[in-house]
Amino acid sequence: MTLPDAPPRWRATCAYDGTDFDGWQSQPSGNAIQDVIEVRLSTIFKRTVRIHGSGRTDAGVHAKGQVFHFDASWPHEPTKLLAALRVGLPPTILVERIERVSPDFHARFSATGKRYVYRIVQTAASPFATRFVLGRSGFQRLDTAAMRTAAMVLRGRHDFRAFAAENGAELEDPVRDLQRLEVEEGNDHVTLVFEANGFLYKMARSLTGALIAVGEGRLSPEDVRHILESNRRTETVETAPARGLCLEEVFYAGGDT
Amino acid sequence: MTLPDAPPRWRATCAYDGTDFDGWQSQPSGNAIQDVIEVRLSTIFKRTVRIHGSGRTDAGVHAKGQVFHFDASWPHEPTKLLAALRVGLPPTILVERIERVSPDFHARFSATGKRYVYRIVQTAASPFATRFVLGRSGFQRLDTAAMRTAAMVLRGRHDFRAFAAENGAELEDPVRDLQRLEVEEGNDHVTLVFEANGFLYKMARSLTGALIAVGEGRLSPEDVRHILESNRRTETVETAPARGLCLEEVFYAGGDT
Repeated sequence: MTLPDAPPRWRATCAYDGTDFDGWQSQPSGNAIQDVIEVRLSTIFKRTVRIHGSGRTDAGVHAKGQVFHFDASWPHEPTKLLAALRVGLPPTILVERIERVSPDFHARFSATGKRYVYRIVQTAASPFATRFVLGRSGFQRLDTAAMRTAAMVLRGRHDFRAFAAENGAELEDPVRDLQRLEVEEGNDHVTLVFEANGFLYKMARSLTGALIAVGEGRLSPEDVRHILESNRRTETVETAPARGLCLEEVFYAGGDT
Repeated sequence: MTLPDAPPRWRATCAYDGTDFDGWQSQPSGNAIQDVIEVRLSTIFKRTVRIHGSGRTDAGVHAKGQVFHFDASWPHEPTKLLAALRVGLPPTILVERIERVSPDFHARFSATGKRYVYRIVQTAASPFATRFVLGRSGFQRLDTAAMRTAAMVLRGRHDFRAFAAENGAELEDPVRDLQRLEVEEGNDHVTLVFEANGFLYKMARSLTGALIAVGEGRLSPEDVRHILESNRRTETVETAPARGLCLEEVFYAGGDT
């Protein structure tokens, strides 16, 4: 008796509006994005299919380029698998592409980094954008010069525990390399761009909360330095609302994201 | 005993994501956009305030520049009325501006025309745009050259009964001047721009349905001419889904929209 060959591995890239879901990671509610995609794949393959994401996104957080992998035998063209996967998913989840990859590819462990973007508008958010931005109608305008100074403090390789969720079980290694942190400003928009080799739980939203506090004058860039160096999460740092955050891209070696 | 002066008249411009509402016009459900705004105004003014829109939009149809008026005494700065009106409205309705106008201004009767836009994508709609466009994943690409030829047939002053809802009680005068009808194409987008002195009930969506049928080759531009000249609505003309339609602007004499 010979063991069957392992089924081929597939990598998929998807976008979603996270507003109406309980985050990426499978939940008892069945309403996580992972759940919804697994149900669809299990229907297609007529067996339980588990998917493995590059990492979780919280409830209400969006993605333009979330990556996941799964193993399954598909005797037809890959484009037909993509078409089958799209049918039956809600319009708020779109699988952008799917491709066969080497069995040693792993959506999470092969990832070399990620880009998150946090979108803020200094006015009331348009009804067409309100699910995807943090609107600041009625608040003072953000001091983006101060925010850029604070961003310089945060950029680079640091222990980021002070900007992670307090119950971080994953904090055996809280050091991350924040290679990029930009404060981009346009008319009424302020956009924060984060690129790191990895993010601690709620790190992007906690950094955003601190930068908004700096923009409002409630914290100084020097305060941010003290917080970073304290290695302790305190109530001084607020976690910004999920709605403005989007996982834009997951990076893999070889550049084939 | 003297009669009190009539309270001042206010003109407001608002945008909304129509997805989760039962259209503009007041409904028993209380979930029409008009209902939601009236409840808010009645709270502000501590009495029932009725608003008068430039016209109704159907359930699921959006607006960037819907205009309404109402009469009310406001002893403070107009900017404070705008701020009060914004607070307490859902984020899917945004009052963009408000201004005091002459008592002979009427949102509906003073309007000289309107612009509607219908947005189509030739692929699957992005999760971030899906509430606001018609996605055509899995369908053949639209023949926009044929659509432009049909648009030439439709442009101008015509009896548009063949492109109105069949139960049109308003059809005492079914002649409208469709001054502009553009078929704009970009990468995967097809955008239809309609400007007319007025629109019959469901006219923009019915014209869109006919143009999509032309783009798919199910109708020829010559068929569209025959339908227009028949002055009768038939099942040949389908009403395009609400999600892609947006009331972009209402025009008033003097250009102060």
